[in-house]
Amino acid sequence: MIINKNTRFLIVGLGLLGGSYARGFTEKGYHVDAITRSQSSVDYALEHEIVEKATTEVDPELISNADIIIFSLYPHIFVDWIEQYGKYIKKGTMITDVTGVKRCIVDKIQSILPDGVEFVSAHPMAGREVYGVENSDEKIFFGANYVVVPTEKNTEENIEACMRIGEILGFGRICQLSPAEHDEMIGFVSQLTHCLAVALMTCYEHEHLEKYTGDSFRDLTRIANINEVMWSELFLLNKDALLRQMDLFMGQFEKLYGFLENDDREGMMDMMKCATERRKLFDK
Amino acid sequence: MIINKNTRFLIVGLGLLGGSYARGFTEKGYHVDAITRSQSSVDYALEHEIVEKATTEVDPELISNADIIIFSLYPHIFVDWIEQYGKYIKKGTMITDVTGVKRCIVDKIQSILPDGVEFVSAHPMAGREVYGVENSDEKIFFGANYVVVPTEKNTEENIEACMRIGEILGFGRICQLSPAEHDEMIGFVSQLTHCLAVALMTCYEHEHLEKYTGDSFRDLTRIANINEVMWSELFLLNKDALLRQMDLFMGQFEKLYGFLENDDREGMMDMMKCATERRKLFDK
Repeated sequence: MIINKNTRFLIVGLGLLGGSYARGFTEKGYHVDAITRSQSSVDYALEHEIVEKATTEVDPELISNADIIIFSLYPHIFVDWIEQYGKYIKKGTMITDVTGVKRCIVDKIQSILPDGVEFVSAHPMAGREVYGVENSDEKIFFGANYVVVPTEKNTEENIEACMRIGEILGFGRICQLSPAEHDEMIGFVSQLTHCLAVALMTCYEHEHLEKYTGDSFRDLTRIANINEVMWSELFLLNKDALLRQMDLFMGQFEKLYGFLENDDREGMMDMMKCATERRKLFDK
Repeated sequence: MIINKNTRFLIVGLGLLGGSYARGFTEKGYHVDAITRSQSSVDYALEHEIVEKATTEVDPELISNADIIIFSLYPHIFVDWIEQYGKYIKKGTMITDVTGVKRCIVDKIQSILPDGVEFVSAHPMAGREVYGVENSDEKIFFGANYVVVPTEKNTEENIEACMRIGEILGFGRICQLSPAEHDEMIGFVSQLTHCLAVALMTCYEHEHLEKYTGDSFRDLTRIANINEVMWSELFLLNKDALLRQMDLFMGQFEKLYGFLENDDREGMMDMMKCATERRKLFDK
């Protein structure tokens, strides 16, 4: 798949991410259509000229017209969709996604797609604490990470095309990881951090000590504003990797606890120095 | 103590916080002098006209000229200073501080001060991840929390004066807490959050998964850039309260861990919903 200005994109699922993809492509002069569940999203997208065509119907013609289809759905809905409507995707089409976990989805989707349809999985690591196409914004991708998650079933050409999508949308860092590497990474940098924010935010029953909070507490708990339906699904789909990261974290937290309990100031200072040095590394 | 434009402030310890106090008072037209350890801080403060007089000497005349003295020192240095030089403080002077823990310091200081010198403790909840008068900035206080921590030894008049300092400096929220309430609060909203950031940042030995990080990870670990000498002292001085907050957090974290381990999606979603609602409350 060589992407050029005649390439026709179809977005399935026009929420915050799907809508931002649509805006990004349209902005750059590509053709974009959409299939999404709610009529209000269709109306919004057409009215704001984010897409050329949009419908709530799973329209075989729209599907077969697409060169590249981007699925922006919850993981289980993505699988259901391909099982039900995958047959409408024409040979030679490349499909990709935005799913936040990979091991559970990539092999599965690749195994149920019609022959000649290639799935190159990707994870745009961007988002906001709001939802829906009404809040979509192509700028959320600028400078962010875009991870392509290929398997041995993918062709170099389509891996390239999938990375090209990241470039078109303006991501700052585009890289490749295997599904297992991806899930381990995401378990640490994203899922674990959400677990910390949720646990911290639920420590006290009522608005209490937080009224005295400064920026640190606000920063740490910003992501405690969480879509529980989506995140609980993502957590369960990455359960083993996330539990490993939680264990790792707890080990370090208990180490610090032990130093404090035993008045081991040197031990605490060593951990703090290590944290400071590590943090500086990625502030550059 | 009624603060007016003839009031003479003396800052002891011209670092980030002391320097920001000095800038704030000077900006508003008050008289400010300083005593600090390093000649370079003295030179900087004089050159930038942050203070009127400054010296590295503990000058009895400068001390006895002050109406209000603000101590911006590490806790144990604050105590040492008062033990050694408290005798130079003239009767009727009010002293205050910026110390991040209170139970260990307030009674102690009040018990060793000369008669007629009143200590009203305060905690300006503001800071930056940089140090020194060169980085001081009165704007760090704008909109932040300023907690006055009076005891039964304090007079209404001087508690008022101490709160007035918070107003002059432009703090957004000025309130009173007892030393025990303060330390419990600070254990949760500040010390625990720093523990989380340090533990998270030390999970992996080398720059590793963090290169894939998005804003959440950056936000959570910003405060992992920590002054280990100061924070280890503050942690140890608030050990019991901080251990309690760490226990509380670990309980919630383990609860979430258990839900995930047992595929209890409802349990996870309940915690996430609670976190989301709680977080929204203090975003207003």
